[in-house]
Amino acid sequence: MNETVVRGGRVWRPGRALEAADVLIRDGVIVAVGPDVGTADAEIIDVPGQLILPGLVEAHCHLDKTLYGGPWVPHSAGEPLAERIANDRDRRGELGIPDVDRITALLERMIACGTSHVRSHTDVDPEVGLRGIEAVRAAADRLDGRVTVEQVAFPQHGVLTNPGTAELLEEALKNGVETIGGIDPAGFDRDPVGQLNVIFGLAGRYGAGIDIHLHDGGTLGAFEFELVIERTEAAGLGGRVAISHGYALPQIDAAHRERLVERLAAAGVTLVTGAVYDFPVPPVKKLRAAGANVACGHDGIRDLWGPFGSGDMLERAMHLAYRNTFRRDEDIELALEAATHGGARLLGLPAYGLEPGAPADLVAVRAGTAAEAVVTHPPRDLVLKNGRTIVQNGVLLPG
Amino acid sequence: MNETVVRGGRVWRPGRALEAADVLIRDGVIVAVGPDVGTADAEIIDVPGQLILPGLVEAHCHLDKTLYGGPWVPHSAGEPLAERIANDRDRRGELGIPDVDRITALLERMIACGTSHVRSHTDVDPEVGLRGIEAVRAAADRLDGRVTVEQVAFPQHGVLTNPGTAELLEEALKNGVETIGGIDPAGFDRDPVGQLNVIFGLAGRYGAGIDIHLHDGGTLGAFEFELVIERTEAAGLGGRVAISHGYALPQIDAAHRERLVERLAAAGVTLVTGAVYDFPVPPVKKLRAAGANVACGHDGIRDLWGPFGSGDMLERAMHLAYRNTFRRDEDIELALEAATHGGARLLGLPAYGLEPGAPADLVAVRAGTAAEAVVTHPPRDLVLKNGRTIVQNGVLLPG
Repeated sequence: MNETVVRGGRVWRPGRALEAADVLIRDGVIVAVGPDVGTADAEIIDVPGQLILPGLVEAHCHLDKTLYGGPWVPHSAGEPLAERIANDRDRRGELGIPDVDRITALLERMIACGTSHVRSHTDVDPEVGLRGIEAVRAAADRLDGRVTVEQVAFPQHGVLTNPGTAELLEEALKNGVETIGGIDPAGFDRDPVGQLNVIFGLAGRYGAGIDIHLHDGGTLGAFEFELVIERTEAAGLGGRVAISHGYALPQIDAAHRERLVERLAAAGVTLVTGAVYDFPVPPVKKLRAAGANVACGHDGIRDLWGPFGSGDMLERAMHLAYRNTFRRDEDIELALEAATHGGARLLGLPAYGLEPGAPADLVAVRAGTAAEAVVTHPPRDLVLKNGRTIVQNGVLLPG
Repeated sequence: MNETVVRGGRVWRPGRALEAADVLIRDGVIVAVGPDVGTADAEIIDVPGQLILPGLVEAHCHLDKTLYGGPWVPHSAGEPLAERIANDRDRRGELGIPDVDRITALLERMIACGTSHVRSHTDVDPEVGLRGIEAVRAAADRLDGRVTVEQVAFPQHGVLTNPGTAELLEEALKNGVETIGGIDPAGFDRDPVGQLNVIFGLAGRYGAGIDIHLHDGGTLGAFEFELVIERTEAAGLGGRVAISHGYALPQIDAAHRERLVERLAAAGVTLVTGAVYDFPVPPVKKLRAAGANVACGHDGIRDLWGPFGSGDMLERAMHLAYRNTFRRDEDIELALEAATHGGARLLGLPAYGLEPGAPADLVAVRAGTAAEAVVTHPPRDLVLKNGRTIVQNGVLLPG
């Protein structure tokens, strides 16, 4: 029996006071959280006074596109979306994207920052085929269980407007990809009902989840929210569908927003946000108060779409809290919840958090409160994945 | 003759290509920038391939209010401005604000991050009197020339609405405080012309600069911009007046904004921004294209007004670039310019930058380009102030 006690920390669980408690881990799973747990034989890891968080969840990124770990590449795209997509298509060959080494470098960075689960939207189109999917899998395999990577087969360059894409999305699902993506069914693909019917159809046939990029703003985007919600309810897919970005939600008038928030909650559709650049940020407090799930991710990290992003989900939670003008601890913790439990709900993890029965994925940092950890995003002194110590003093340990 | 060569770096100057060059320093002043400078006797500091930036300029903070360096203090204020002001007034006594040790800790942090000049808005009111001014001076004195601190006598709790404040502002100017502040002449003090006349009157009598907090939004705030511009022109104070925050500018319609940007440029009024929380951020590119000056600062850092802020001006420039949705190197550099040369212009520094004749205030970091330094804000490997090495490997050297 392999028993470990993470001793002397203060355990964070959303909505509860911090609790000075030891964490008892047996065979990679948390079996008890409290005072004086464990047998005399247990291996002891002392974290005196440190804050213990569950493994962080990166809920929306694009691993396949990253240039992370390589030299700085100045951004070369124009501003309009169409130009950025064209730039992406033109330059990914030149830069050797997707690149397993770069994806590995970014995953290593994420792990060193305490991320235990990642959802990555991977380009699938007739030009790149399933090479991105394979590259992300190859990189994840190299990390040998130190992080879990779920992929979304993502039609970055359109579904209806890019012939052959739907067939490749289906191919990806047959190949075991867990989730199917979409992009601006109206604004980009020019036929919201058409794209959503393809996506929901495929999801139904293969038992896949759905996660749709929705940048379309205002009442157009809000209409697409409604189409997604209607189809989620009709297909009984509550809990398995997400809208990423969803810029429309903060843009529409308050009464409309309130109705949409209620409908997201009732339908079990998650809103995933990165709080990136100056783009609209969802009202996290209102969403959570209504019972809607919110998850958080970086979106692109050092890629042809933009040079920003660090891979650190505590820093990303800072952006989400900051853009919500959260100042109070209990509000800032909502951003951390999105970067932990919210992401875990999105991914449908069967057990998660600092509770008995959950895999022992945890992070220890020096911070007085969870809010301080978000504000300062200090080095990760200790990271465990399935009970295994994989990071010490901010450094990823060799496999 | 005390000669130093900072050797092997790549020198950043706004609007110019990076240049591989050595920096020759004599008696604390840069005397040459180029290849193979200096005599055989010069002390050599090798910075192979590193990016060399001028000393960073923190153009707007509130040193007197900070709780930096102490334990985490959960935010306790309500949302409306009046509640936050009341919370500040109620709790500053309890928490021992202003505190010379905490101000010193924050200044040390700023120095370790490469900041060489600071403008701090310090509360002046009948309750606190000039104690804040004295505390900031005492802390700056402790740092013994490693950073330059300019103060703004700041009527946080109003001028007209807080009797005795105008007299204390005058007292501060008599005491050598360089700049006089103001706050929302309309929204807070209820008489824009009245407050501005007091402030411009005092500035004229004592030869002080002016830096006014203006949160008032929309057309009200824009009207106050105009009042400030008119008085700046009438008094011949071009180059010595700033509006901090100026949320109205991005809020008004585009044509109105364009006129106001032109007038700011013509009048020589600087716009100072922190790009804080979700508050409106000025259009940096438009301002600079019109020739208006932009400077950058944190606003509050870990105080009763909010828990955020790190003291790192490269990180702050990141926020400014990010909220402007700058992706291209030359755009991101505009944010760095605000955090360096823009701040230097605001402060009226007679010589500044990586040019012969300027004090040798410089920072070396590992970054491929200035934009990368903003995005990653890496540790400061070396910081010089007036030619003196004060930071190595991110650590402030003992006095």
